[in-house]
Amino acid sequence: MKLSASVLPIKVGRYSVVLSKDDADEMGVVEGDRLKISKGRSVISGSVQIATGLIARGRIGVYQDVAEELRIEDGSEVEIFPISRPPSVEFIRKKLEGGKFTKEEVYEIIKDIVENSLTEIELTAFVLSNYLVGMDFDEIEWMTRAMIETGETIEFERGIVVDKHSIGGVPGNKVSLIIVPTVASGGLLIPKTASRAITSASGTADTMEVLADVNLSVDEIKEITQRVGGVIAWGGATNIAPADDRIIRVENPLSIDPRPQLLSSVMAKKGAVGARHVAIDIPVGNGAKLGSVEEGRKLAGEFVELGRRLGLNLACAITNGSQPVGRTIGPALEAWEAMKALEERKGSTSFLEKSLGLAGLIFELSGLSPNGYEFAKEIFTSGKSLEKFREIVAAQGGDESVRADSISLGNERFSIESNTEGAVVDVINSRIVRVARLAGAPKDKGAGIYIHKKKGEVVRAGEPLITIYAEKSWKLSNAIEFAIENPPVIVSGMILERYPSYRVV
Amino acid sequence: MKLSASVLPIKVGRYSVVLSKDDADEMGVVEGDRLKISKGRSVISGSVQIATGLIARGRIGVYQDVAEELRIEDGSEVEIFPISRPPSVEFIRKKLEGGKFTKEEVYEIIKDIVENSLTEIELTAFVLSNYLVGMDFDEIEWMTRAMIETGETIEFERGIVVDKHSIGGVPGNKVSLIIVPTVASGGLLIPKTASRAITSASGTADTMEVLADVNLSVDEIKEITQRVGGVIAWGGATNIAPADDRIIRVENPLSIDPRPQLLSSVMAKKGAVGARHVAIDIPVGNGAKLGSVEEGRKLAGEFVELGRRLGLNLACAITNGSQPVGRTIGPALEAWEAMKALEERKGSTSFLEKSLGLAGLIFELSGLSPNGYEFAKEIFTSGKSLEKFREIVAAQGGDESVRADSISLGNERFSIESNTEGAVVDVINSRIVRVARLAGAPKDKGAGIYIHKKKGEVVRAGEPLITIYAEKSWKLSNAIEFAIENPPVIVSGMILERYPSYRVV
Repeated sequence: MKLSASVLPIKVGRYSVVLSKDDADEMGVVEGDRLKISKGRSVISGSVQIATGLIARGRIGVYQDVAEELRIEDGSEVEIFPISRPPSVEFIRKKLEGGKFTKEEVYEIIKDIVENSLTEIELTAFVLSNYLVGMDFDEIEWMTRAMIETGETIEFERGIVVDKHSIGGVPGNKVSLIIVPTVASGGLLIPKTASRAITSASGTADTMEVLADVNLSVDEIKEITQRVGGVIAWGGATNIAPADDRIIRVENPLSIDPRPQLLSSVMAKKGAVGARHVAIDIPVGNGAKLGSVEEGRKLAGEFVELGRRLGLNLACAITNGSQPVGRTIGPALEAWEAMKALEERKGSTSFLEKSLGLAGLIFELSGLSPNGYEFAKEIFTSGKSLEKFREIVAAQGGDESVRADSISLGNERFSIESNTEGAVVDVINSRIVRVARLAGAPKDKGAGIYIHKKKGEVVRAGEPLITIYAEKSWKLSNAIEFAIENPPVIVSGMILERYPSYRVV
Repeated sequence: MKLSASVLPIKVGRYSVVLSKDDADEMGVVEGDRLKISKGRSVISGSVQIATGLIARGRIGVYQDVAEELRIEDGSEVEIFPISRPPSVEFIRKKLEGGKFTKEEVYEIIKDIVENSLTEIELTAFVLSNYLVGMDFDEIEWMTRAMIETGETIEFERGIVVDKHSIGGVPGNKVSLIIVPTVASGGLLIPKTASRAITSASGTADTMEVLADVNLSVDEIKEITQRVGGVIAWGGATNIAPADDRIIRVENPLSIDPRPQLLSSVMAKKGAVGARHVAIDIPVGNGAKLGSVEEGRKLAGEFVELGRRLGLNLACAITNGSQPVGRTIGPALEAWEAMKALEERKGSTSFLEKSLGLAGLIFELSGLSPNGYEFAKEIFTSGKSLEKFREIVAAQGGDESVRADSISLGNERFSIESNTEGAVVDVINSRIVRVARLAGAPKDKGAGIYIHKKKGEVVRAGEPLITIYAEKSWKLSNAIEFAIENPPVIVSGMILERYPSYRVV
């Protein structure tokens, strides 16, 4: 059937067109059915929505995603033809019944995900089948390889390529800003791709963006890594393992992270940049993704097995995830804390020990040093990490002479003080993140939190527990209101949930 | 945040608005986040889509669904406020983890489904959790009651209200056109709501629509039933158990029918019209929803238990679903076959035995006769069923003097003949449906199939196996092409899959 296009200026994240009820009935298609959509010799497959009385007969509403792909304008002639659903849907149904994917089936599904050929319902069914039915190591390996092969990859001509990754879930985790320059100073290549915050207050890419450009292509990532040894880029600007981004869009609204996807998501990114030695950070504890060291060990064992299958030399560090890393949360504040540590060659214990511990693990994996932590600490305290970090910042288009004090933090500030004397018994990750986001992070770079008192530290009545930073006063107010009703820092001796729990000064 | 509306003339089946990337970042919302959307004092909750560079800052794209609900026009001032996801999503997550719903949780989820408060991803997660984790009878009972209570219901002041339902899956199942007038002639009230075809070639509502209006309100259903004893209406025109329609929209693309939803879908519709005695038709066999009598018995046991809990007197008939019921498929052809049987007081064995058997079951359940089948047959052969059916047709705005011969069938016709002598060993339901749909059913009322030879019948070379009816020659061609490549009627002695298997004359 040939129809005249009306472009709908909205991106819907999939290939979808809108037909009148009459035309849909005429073709015998119902909501969600698949169509072959073509203009001239360009063809894609998409799905149909049906409008009641709003799209005229003979017209076809074309969302921006389709319009761009097929270069359709208002009035273009578009031909559609109903097609049956792709074989992937049958494979997903088999998994729902408890079956096992073949290699070819996994590849076909990942290809369809990358090509936007699955509807949101089908993609959700895929993710949930993996959550509820699961995958064995064969299937996870195939999925990881398929994710790598359906995206861009980097091959370095020389040098030892290493990488690190955190499974996430703990706020303030700015460790890459220490690890990358330290590892690069040691002579290794570390092309680190990082994510932006989705539900957190700052992703590593958001933090690095305070100091330099993170929207790098794979060619730029390769060139900079070869020239200065390391890079911290936003993975989303590349086309590395694109299937993963689509899958995450379904996982987030349900707050689920099926194990097969968690594993393949991390490993595909490492595999795509050609990393040989990889350190994985697995934070555990109350308020982290995994509650206990035992759960951490289980996941670590799975990472190691998957690494072995993919030919990666991999080790995991099970880390303390029960409170934020370091004292800052939010892009500029985290960049500031990292710069400050690099400049002063010291810093918050949790932050530095973790950073240098992970850098050390990489040195040990790559055979550069049998005592990696000491090796990393030496580089760090010698000032080489600072020097290398400034090189990296400059290579990414930032200011080579950057200093902590030149980083601009939000000017709207408010400190919440303890109304009692005691010791901090808890810093609640989820509340810290919520307060920082209400204050404007990650969009407002200067917004976030400085934590004055962490677990085990003694506080006197009237001393500040946290300072909230914001760029806009109305956001500061929202953050304060929430923080008072839901204290993120708990001091012993206080009634935990009484309102107001804190004296606000 | 207050924004100026641009109405997007598309119905998307949920409450959704579109923001510019800048405004979304400013509010700290991401794709799929929930918003409170208000204009003046009218408020609904919806979800956000994000446009890149296509919706201007300060503007908000409002789909028709939202625009109608809040009476928004281009330029209306719309206020939005981010809200957290509804508690239902946590309940669904609990089920994904293998938990059991409380009564309150089930009611909350069904309420949210009816109010369009769940995203497609969340609704898919609900349906799949029921498919993979399941529900116990408590949960199914609560879901059924919640479905009834969130929709319209009918209460009859007097009379014995009965009903029948088929779980579907077998083509040509026009039995309601015999059952309803027969049961009504016996003095019972049968307010039958039926569905239209979604993936089949004709739903009972499509078939009845050939003869009368089926778009009746619940008031009309009640009035007609009280006046003439029975009605055959399209359930979709009412607001009876509306949650069910939303759930089916997710089940269909995945071809799944989770047991809890199958049970509650049927029972909610029966409960909502106040039925006291209910017969359930469970077709089993190759090509039906259930493959074996054993599976049919298991489902029957579940229906009976759910009926007991809801206070319904219920019995199931496990019927032969391995080939079509009667000899016709498609709206007008099925209406014709039913009228013909009513007029001649005889007809295809499978069709009449099933119809009168189910009518008889209802007579037995309601205590009207200990030998229901004989009782039903007497009414039918006396001509009372025909008389009553014409009354019902007239009550629904049709022609009281309707005759089979006055029903107009598609004029584009083509017969496929057997190229061999033998006996029919199979009539493949899925191919029959596909051919009828390609020929234009259910949209083209006159399109469909007449089956000359059914299972076990002897055929000579050159005798017709099926005749395809269509209203448009191009649709007839498509149907013929498919039927030749995928023979729906298999004669013994033929090579089953050879192409072309049939000689076409």
